[in-house]
Amino acid sequence: MKEKPARRRFLKQAALLSAAGASGRAASQELAGEPWERVYGAGFRGYGQPSRFEQPVQRYVFRPYGDLAPGSGAALAPIERFEGIITPSSLHNERSHSGVPDIDPKVHRLVLHGLVARPLTFTVDALLSYPMTSRIHFLECSGNSNRALSPQPMQVPAGAMHGNIACSEWTGIPLAMLLEEAGVQPQAKWLLAEGADSAHMSRSIPIEKALDDAIIALYQNGERLRPEQGYPVRLLLPGWEGNMSVKWLRRIKATEGPTHTKDETSKYTDLLPDGKALQFTYEMGVKSVITKPSSTMKLPRPGLYEISGIAWSGAGRVRRVEVSTDGGVTWRDAVLHGEERPKALVRFRMPWEWQGQPAILQSRSTDEKGSVQPARKDWLARYSPANSFHNHSIVSWSVEADGSVRHVYA
Amino acid sequence: MKEKPARRRFLKQAALLSAAGASGRAASQELAGEPWERVYGAGFRGYGQPSRFEQPVQRYVFRPYGDLAPGSGAALAPIERFEGIITPSSLHNERSHSGVPDIDPKVHRLVLHGLVARPLTFTVDALLSYPMTSRIHFLECSGNSNRALSPQPMQVPAGAMHGNIACSEWTGIPLAMLLEEAGVQPQAKWLLAEGADSAHMSRSIPIEKALDDAIIALYQNGERLRPEQGYPVRLLLPGWEGNMSVKWLRRIKATEGPTHTKDETSKYTDLLPDGKALQFTYEMGVKSVITKPSSTMKLPRPGLYEISGIAWSGAGRVRRVEVSTDGGVTWRDAVLHGEERPKALVRFRMPWEWQGQPAILQSRSTDEKGSVQPARKDWLARYSPANSFHNHSIVSWSVEADGSVRHVYA
Repeated sequence: MKEKPARRRFLKQAALLSAAGASGRAASQELAGEPWERVYGAGFRGYGQPSRFEQPVQRYVFRPYGDLAPGSGAALAPIERFEGIITPSSLHNERSHSGVPDIDPKVHRLVLHGLVARPLTFTVDALLSYPMTSRIHFLECSGNSNRALSPQPMQVPAGAMHGNIACSEWTGIPLAMLLEEAGVQPQAKWLLAEGADSAHMSRSIPIEKALDDAIIALYQNGERLRPEQGYPVRLLLPGWEGNMSVKWLRRIKATEGPTHTKDETSKYTDLLPDGKALQFTYEMGVKSVITKPSSTMKLPRPGLYEISGIAWSGAGRVRRVEVSTDGGVTWRDAVLHGEERPKALVRFRMPWEWQGQPAILQSRSTDEKGSVQPARKDWLARYSPANSFHNHSIVSWSVEADGSVRHVYA
Repeated sequence: MKEKPARRRFLKQAALLSAAGASGRAASQELAGEPWERVYGAGFRGYGQPSRFEQPVQRYVFRPYGDLAPGSGAALAPIERFEGIITPSSLHNERSHSGVPDIDPKVHRLVLHGLVARPLTFTVDALLSYPMTSRIHFLECSGNSNRALSPQPMQVPAGAMHGNIACSEWTGIPLAMLLEEAGVQPQAKWLLAEGADSAHMSRSIPIEKALDDAIIALYQNGERLRPEQGYPVRLLLPGWEGNMSVKWLRRIKATEGPTHTKDETSKYTDLLPDGKALQFTYEMGVKSVITKPSSTMKLPRPGLYEISGIAWSGAGRVRRVEVSTDGGVTWRDAVLHGEERPKALVRFRMPWEWQGQPAILQSRSTDEKGSVQPARKDWLARYSPANSFHNHSIVSWSVEADGSVRHVYA
């Protein structure tokens, strides 16, 4: 309801623009038809693809070791090209340590062993016959937004900095069910989850999380997992840093304590100002980013625009997203879509009249636990400058007088 | 909670099966690693695709005119291969009358004219700058399930009969906003919506629907519309027969009465027993279908299974899905996922112990208006045998003594 005045203004402006188009090109002329209306169209395809005009929409691929290790690195989602909250699986963000293994689902096995009464071996077909659950959850790499820690703000699209995040409908077996079946022993307080990639990506997981909302995921957005998302089976730990949702899952071992694998000692720890490092920082912080307009875009002219973006929290539901157009001096509440779902992306939208003056756009999210997305300087003060994980600080876009949108540190 | 006993029984059985696997193949052997764990994996891709082992999962293509009109017909979604409620856009059902036009979004225009104060012409870029809304809705062809009207029950997968249905997150502009902008005149009670395919697919739409929940859709599951779904812009009329959600939308004309286009006189009317036909039957009936297990599948052995399927209603929310395993003599309530969303697919699930006896599986949905999915014979009695639209009657799968699942009329 509170949007009404802004909406009316939007309509008034849009009508002017559109009417100008209509007068310059009479409706009768419009109705004559374009070339594609005069030829029979293309036939059916068993598996569809985007329009050829949308082919430039691709993931942003980062390979820090280049051709030496072409499958080590990350592919970030072009979040500035998306709308809504579901990410198409083809453009889901991806973090891999030794490339994508080509796994035959007839051969792959998942082993559940360690401190259990009954060690179990599951074929993929056996897993597919289990009772399942479906939930919409985001998945964010703990290294997301580390490119926004460079000395000077990079002038790249939003997705190339903040796109190591995506959101899908995941379907699979509650991990608690398989643990019950194996008979986990009382002294088992941790699990080791290991992938079938050649890096054997491995993480230790507290048993409480496994019994809470962990899923042995087999489907993503309705279809079977994609290879880069862990086909044929992956772990999914909603709200926790992405690397813990171990892909190509080959075994789960119940243990007394954490295993301290290479992936939780040499990597994925958060360096503090005093030189110590935080280990086992699981939950992804409350966060948001404006995707429209965003870095490298250009507003064609002064007028009314919709500011739109995504927000999320590893702690549960997003309760509020505020938007500032003056670099954080004043804030207004955005309208939320999808805020009923915990640990899922939320779409926020707010109308904004740009009168041609320079502006700094920011968004700030608050979750149901009351946590508020921190200012950049406050977040930076918590860590060593060498830390590159868990950056969930406020993102700033500057709108210049000519309408160009730039990434700034504000 | 009420599932608990069935779940325990499931676990007991599954444990036996899995333990058998484990004993035959020791855990130590499992941990040795498969070939793909010993080689570096594949590199990143800008736009991902399914595993090569999932390539057989394709839409079922029906071209009633063969090579004479290769783009006229339908491509049905393989619903028996899906889980959850989101359909991947690549496998979304498709109904096209003259193929898929290859539309350049820089050239395409949407015209809003007729009984309006201000005729408007929109470029696609202009549309993309409007305030948007995102909602999850199903889209079902009114001819869905007409292959289940053949004299003898076809023995084909569930999707090849009932797969002219899918469900996506759609994002676009509320049509009411554009109508407000154009200034629709009071005497305009209908709209004509016309596509830019060479068939100029056209339907008349009551203004009330346009002002209620109609969307000018630009995005599907986060990314821009696929060509076969109306790229660059389509109409979306939630809950109404799919052909009215006109694809490749080129104009909307405000009119006093319905236009009686070829697509609502020679097609898409429902023949009655007395030879008359119902015209303008918009809303899709309350419906459900069991997808697992379903026609052409085979249960490997007696034991506990999860019965799973999809339910929906064009009238709003699904309130209840009941499942029978004895051909409709007794019914049990299934567990629902996603039932909070109106006019969207709901996933239902129910554990079932198959003891090796012949069984007939059925599902029956009830929506928030109190409408109940009709029995096949009751639905058939309403129409002429020549009618092929709006079949939302109960579907029956027979489980034979050898575990094979067959389509039956029951």
